[in-house]
Amino acid sequence: MFPKNAWYVACTPDEIDAKPLGRRVCGESIAFYRPQEGQVAAVEDFCPHRGAALSLGQVCEGQLVCGYHGLVMGCNGKTVSMPGQRVGGFPAIRAYPVIERHGFIWVWPGDPALADPAKLHHLHWADSPDWAYGGGMYHIHCDYRLMVDNLMDLTHETYVHTTSIGQKEIDETPVNTKTVGEEVITSRFMNGVKAPPFWRANLRGNGLPDDQLVDRWQICHFSPPSHVMIEVGVALAGQGGYEAPDNQKVSSIVVDFITPETETTMWYFWGMARNFNVKDKNLTAQIKEGQGKVFAEDTAVLEAQQRNLTLYKNRKLLLLNIDAGGVQSRRIIDRLIAAEQASPTAEAAL
Amino acid sequence: MFPKNAWYVACTPDEIDAKPLGRRVCGESIAFYRPQEGQVAAVEDFCPHRGAALSLGQVCEGQLVCGYHGLVMGCNGKTVSMPGQRVGGFPAIRAYPVIERHGFIWVWPGDPALADPAKLHHLHWADSPDWAYGGGMYHIHCDYRLMVDNLMDLTHETYVHTTSIGQKEIDETPVNTKTVGEEVITSRFMNGVKAPPFWRANLRGNGLPDDQLVDRWQICHFSPPSHVMIEVGVALAGQGGYEAPDNQKVSSIVVDFITPETETTMWYFWGMARNFNVKDKNLTAQIKEGQGKVFAEDTAVLEAQQRNLTLYKNRKLLLLNIDAGGVQSRRIIDRLIAAEQASPTAEAAL
Amino acid sequence: MFPKNAWYVACTPDEIDAKPLGRRVCGESIAFYRPQEGQVAAVEDFCPHRGAALSLGQVCEGQLVCGYHGLVMGCNGKTVSMPGQRVGGFPAIRAYPVIERHGFIWVWPGDPALADPAKLHHLHWADSPDWAYGGGMYHIHCDYRLMVDNLMDLTHETYVHTTSIGQKEIDETPVNTKTVGEEVITSRFMNGVKAPPFWRANLRGNGLPDDQLVDRWQICHFSPPSHVMIEVGVALAGQGGYEAPDNQKVSSIVVDFITPETETTMWYFWGMARNFNVKDKNLTAQIKEGQGKVFAEDTAVLEAQQRNLTLYKNRKLLLLNIDAGGVQSRRIIDRLIAAEQASPTAEAAL
Repeated sequence: MFPKNAWYVACTPDEIDAKPLGRRVCGESIAFYRPQEGQVAAVEDFCPHRGAALSLGQVCEGQLVCGYHGLVMGCNGKTVSMPGQRVGGFPAIRAYPVIERHGFIWVWPGDPALADPAKLHHLHWADSPDWAYGGGMYHIHCDYRLMVDNLMDLTHETYVHTTSIGQKEIDETPVNTKTVGEEVITSRFMNGVKAPPFWRANLRGNGLPDDQLVDRWQICHFSPPSHVMIEVGVALAGQGGYEAPDNQKVSSIVVDFITPETETTMWYFWGMARNFNVKDKNLTAQIKEGQGKVFAEDTAVLEAQQRNLTLYKNRKLLLLNIDAGGVQSRRIIDRLIAAEQASPTAEAAL
Repeated sequence: MFPKNAWYVACTPDEIDAKPLGRRVCGESIAFYRPQEGQVAAVEDFCPHRGAALSLGQVCEGQLVCGYHGLVMGCNGKTVSMPGQRVGGFPAIRAYPVIERHGFIWVWPGDPALADPAKLHHLHWADSPDWAYGGGMYHIHCDYRLMVDNLMDLTHETYVHTTSIGQKEIDETPVNTKTVGEEVITSRFMNGVKAPPFWRANLRGNGLPDDQLVDRWQICHFSPPSHVMIEVGVALAGQGGYEAPDNQKVSSIVVDFITPETETTMWYFWGMARNFNVKDKNLTAQIKEGQGKVFAEDTAVLEAQQRNLTLYKNRKLLLLNIDAGGVQSRRIIDRLIAAEQASPTAEAAL
Repeated sequence: MFPKNAWYVACTPDEIDAKPLGRRVCGESIAFYRPQEGQVAAVEDFCPHRGAALSLGQVCEGQLVCGYHGLVMGCNGKTVSMPGQRVGGFPAIRAYPVIERHGFIWVWPGDPALADPAKLHHLHWADSPDWAYGGGMYHIHCDYRLMVDNLMDLTHETYVHTTSIGQKEIDETPVNTKTVGEEVITSRFMNGVKAPPFWRANLRGNGLPDDQLVDRWQICHFSPPSHVMIEVGVALAGQGGYEAPDNQKVSSIVVDFITPETETTMWYFWGMARNFNVKDKNLTAQIKEGQGKVFAEDTAVLEAQQRNLTLYKNRKLLLLNIDAGGVQSRRIIDRLIAAEQASPTAEAAL
């Protein structure tokens, strides 16, 4: 179960630069491609002629040409032409609203009539010279909501990420969780603690001492359909924490776009946006490598959890205070799904 | 759905020379083996004692001996003996009519009473010193009828086999398709065209110029249950094309035996028979390598098509004029299946 | 179908020395671990918080700590604590009776109230300095009862293990099979035969001539739920065979613990206990290597048999005299299963 009337990250731009890409998003098989340099299009990955995968075809003169018998598919899902054929009566396939923005390709798998580009998640850091971004993608065998739970309850860092970002104070410090409109925010402030290895390195890199106590924060923002942005950082203790002046802190944003593939598999686009040492490409690569290891730890935990939930279908899980972030996020997701199912266009959207 | 009262290619002789072979054909699990040098037998791959796979056994003194407890199975599916046992009451397993001919092992998975060796597809080139043959086998995850469609509509060469045998004129030239008795023939004649790389090489090899325009032809012959023989060739332009004198042309036969394994998997025996430079073993190897690449391209397309058809079970496909070869071939297949189901021996055959 | 009120071998001690082990036994997902050195515990591999796999966690200060959010699980399946939580109302998970004995970890997947350690299979050789043991474990894709059949009918040695322990006399010599209480014994005595390679080597190793005729025996003991111990050996011919004085024979025990994982998969703990050259670690390693090859031959046969039985679900198999060992063993298994299903605690046990 996933909302379909929403913008999801489908892929990164480099995945479609050289040739079309076939990828399932929210159960829909979609061929993504570039009609022209700088453009992007998305249609069902199903040739109306004989059902071949259009993503195995090529782009010629701005059109996607089926790699089986040369049917020329338009960006709107209508067949443009086919050698030796009149194509007027060919059934259309679905075309999906798709946008390239903020360094990602976004797709709207639901009702195209509702696809408002203005609803696309804004990333203030994405196009700013003051920020640097690095990230990767994992294909994970679990319900996408398990990843939302994971990211909205960072107490798991103490146990899953022991050697990098975990520290005992995380699960000793209670979180505060609230829903504000369609956003869920869960925050934790740990004052006067030792900085873990990741942050000590970044303090040094920013010209700050790495051997003093710090105020550390984690502010997780869920927004539909399933994006989680986490503000993280440390300031020298007593300087105001999250509100400390820039020269007393280092901070960044953990970026998580969670895209359902099927009911029990997902695409995980992860990364980090930072506003310090933004020109240091080695640092970008280092952070990416470190995050890659951290999220691989999550992957192992989540896939085992999914296997358990599949095996024990009817067992009830606990909803504790630390789960409030996930619970409130799922409430928003459920509300969106219910609204879609009640809507008169629901059928068209499925 | 496949006709079972028919001769299918089960394997090549070398696959059973050293030991028995277990292979499913039309859903039947069969053990193929040589009771004596030069002989071939086929029985259900199921020991009546405890269900072991007979194909894991050995041939001893002309009999297939189960590799589990030594039951000796006769070519007729009746147990011959077993150490320490009276076997008179042992239930028989199925024995399958099987013939080695034309360089292949052929099996009749249906009603043995109907298995007439005279019905076996005749290959005039197979035992002639004027012809050479080379080929291979692929296991493909698709309904065998998708491969029939593929081979009966060569417009796909322009798109799937761009670098070897494809050329734009193929899908610019209409085909002519007709059903003659139980055979479907679809032909395309392209006159005054440039020869593609494969044919230029063969023109040279045959002492003909490779830089002149040629008349090219493709004549696909479908015959039940699912064999497709394709006459292909080029003649120097204006010399009569297909009818040109032998010293003005080069030609060969693309050989395709398509054997269903299950409803959605198949064995594909592919190759080429040619009547030029027949003693050139290097050429045989070169052609086989080239064909292997070409058919691997088809495999990728067909397996993606099958995944799509499985996912979109109820979507109707188009039937265009270029599909006529496949459509008429499937009509014959459907008629054979219907006849088998109506027949009083149908139950025995299943 | 398997009895659940029984002691099964779950793993070997080394598998849980470094960290917890997740393993399914009789369909139950279980986390095995050592609360303290020398202790062993087993609980459902399912964290009551969010369903994470407890086996991915760590043991800290004698408790299993969930690797996701730090829930501390007690050996009795009750949550001990969790950071920042009151755990009194947390639902309990199952705890399984588990014992380390005779070099194995044993688990009782059924009703804990019935788990009497005195019922655990006694291995007289396991803790004796006069015996040596070596063995391994295979995960096999077949119903565990196919392995019981296999081991209770050694005529298969002639066919499956041709080059090591098989010899023609095995299936020429009839077996005697009887059920004694809950044990099935099937024995074969081959007098005045040539010793096969395995035994010739051991005769030499024991200072006995290897070129004389021997009396060979195989006595298979099945005991519930699915253990098979096979007494095997040779004595110089005419010295009393199985009853010959120790200096005239060599003998050992083939050890087989067969643990169902699911209905069609199993864990196979195999090995050999011997009372000769017990300090020769090279010999232990050699025997283990040899047995590993022998049981890999069985694995291939059994997995193919399982595939056949899955494909031909309704076909009846033969029950011959040589199958008596398997048949009588299955009768005991069936009786135990029926008793469990009739028992008022059955529901609790499932």
